[in-house]
Amino acid sequence: MAKRLVIALGGNALGNTPKQQLDLVKKTASTIVDLVEEGYEVVVGHGNGPQVGMVNLAFENSHNKVGGTPEMPFPECGAMTQGYIGYHLQQSIGKELKKRGLNNPVATVVTQVEVDRNDSAFENPTKPIGSFYSKEEADKIVAETGYTFVEDAGRGYRRVVPSPKPVSIVEIETVENLVKAGCVVITVGGGGIPVIKSDGWFEGVAAVIDKDRASAKLALDLKADMLVILTAVEKVAINFNKPDQKELDEMSLEEARQYMAEGHFAKGSMLPKVESCIEYVENTENGKALITSLEKARDALQGKTGTVIHR
Amino acid sequence: MAKRLVIALGGNALGNTPKQQLDLVKKTASTIVDLVEEGYEVVVGHGNGPQVGMVNLAFENSHNKVGGTPEMPFPECGAMTQGYIGYHLQQSIGKELKKRGLNNPVATVVTQVEVDRNDSAFENPTKPIGSFYSKEEADKIVAETGYTFVEDAGRGYRRVVPSPKPVSIVEIETVENLVKAGCVVITVGGGGIPVIKSDGWFEGVAAVIDKDRASAKLALDLKADMLVILTAVEKVAINFNKPDQKELDEMSLEEARQYMAEGHFAKGSMLPKVESCIEYVENTENGKALITSLEKARDALQGKTGTVIHR
Repeated sequence: MAKRLVIALGGNALGNTPKQQLDLVKKTASTIVDLVEEGYEVVVGHGNGPQVGMVNLAFENSHNKVGGTPEMPFPECGAMTQGYIGYHLQQSIGKELKKRGLNNPVATVVTQVEVDRNDSAFENPTKPIGSFYSKEEADKIVAETGYTFVEDAGRGYRRVVPSPKPVSIVEIETVENLVKAGCVVITVGGGGIPVIKSDGWFEGVAAVIDKDRASAKLALDLKADMLVILTAVEKVAINFNKPDQKELDEMSLEEARQYMAEGHFAKGSMLPKVESCIEYVENTENGKALITSLEKARDALQGKTGTVIHR
Repeated sequence: MAKRLVIALGGNALGNTPKQQLDLVKKTASTIVDLVEEGYEVVVGHGNGPQVGMVNLAFENSHNKVGGTPEMPFPECGAMTQGYIGYHLQQSIGKELKKRGLNNPVATVVTQVEVDRNDSAFENPTKPIGSFYSKEEADKIVAETGYTFVEDAGRGYRRVVPSPKPVSIVEIETVENLVKAGCVVITVGGGGIPVIKSDGWFEGVAAVIDKDRASAKLALDLKADMLVILTAVEKVAINFNKPDQKELDEMSLEEARQYMAEGHFAKGSMLPKVESCIEYVENTENGKALITSLEKARDALQGKTGTVIHR
């Protein structure tokens, strides 16, 4: 049976403009198809920070400053980025597969991810989105909408949304069906469209789900053999950027927890990645997690580089 | 074996703002789940005219008049609407299924539809998109981009894009896999993201594919038993809006062609629907096409109303 990988793509695998993205995803597609070529079943999760910021800002600008278009809620902006990024990824992956004579289908599944309305993150929104406002403008919007704003490093006031944990992936059955059929599936884009339970089903909520956490949940649900988090560095390091920096080939769960406690991993950067790997590894029997760069993914899966997190 | 329906949803099944759409899709979901409940396999195609206009305009406004966001190409705007509309549809359909105790999964597949770069439509772009410009502004954009602009009913100059015919549905294998697995599939949103052959695979092209034509192609590829086009009227009429208006229960291919030749069906309205039905019926052995309203779909499938097009 083919080994199943869930790959979480970081910001460097995509781009800040459509042109840049269409160019960058070629390299991303090449790495993904490398893994398909090696016989893996591949499921792709990805972030959407810059892209959902762009969509949100375009609608904000257009509605508030020019007029003629409606306000666009945040979950809907996220849904748009799944279509936008998924389209580029599936087109590039499809082309690369074809080039190498592989016939796997590729598909993007628009994916909702459930979060808990009682998640403590809702009491403490931390993710900045959209444009900068003056204090007066921000106060006015807060009065009208109830949004939360924070002062952002002297650059003005910015809306923040919560970053709750993923509870369930609404479209998981569809993803599983497609993976079994040999399809390269793109899912949980941007961590998934955040939804909460409402009236027996789900409704959208303004939030950002961490894409590495969503990918860990995906890997658990799909009983993947490995969670692969692709980022800007080849290996995880302790004492990062210090004279005694040390790159790690592997970490046990215990070591990973100890390094975390010692503050080796930066918040909002390596920390959520290591946490997601721990979450995945401690909840599977034999699953391992791997953190490496997009460029080194193939080598890392052959055991030549990268950092493996294991029991 | 379950009978398979391809349903093409018209503009009245969606909405012009996110709030309006989220409200309207409840009724749409109810109709779709009626059909699932009756034992049909249901595949949903839909338009995106107002929605892709909105996304395109928001990015145009933001980029040209405020700044801070990049230009967004038209196929990418279409991909965004597939995420946006698909999300609303799948959430509402999921809720309605759950309410009725049905366990079918629902999924939106981001879908590219191939068109031929030699399609004569590219020589004669007809679909207006985006905002109105003065002659000077339009001339400047034409010089910079090569876009085509036309004067629109005294309201100014507007960009037009071609409306070529669908040649193939790139993600058809994925759609088929999911339908077989009992999934309600949302696909070819807005007629599909228009792509042309390029370097052995596909690349996006600025165009709008008619959603009824794309749905007819979908029905053919999926060997559907029926193509169901849902629109604002319960039945197709000849001598429409005249004293001798006559609503039709059915049309043979010959009758449909004769009515078309006599000019009974309005261009850009009923004509492409009837043409799509003919295209489907004449290329299947036993398939029939049905044109009716969203509200009457269930009755029409029981033979109580609607207009059936048959051999």
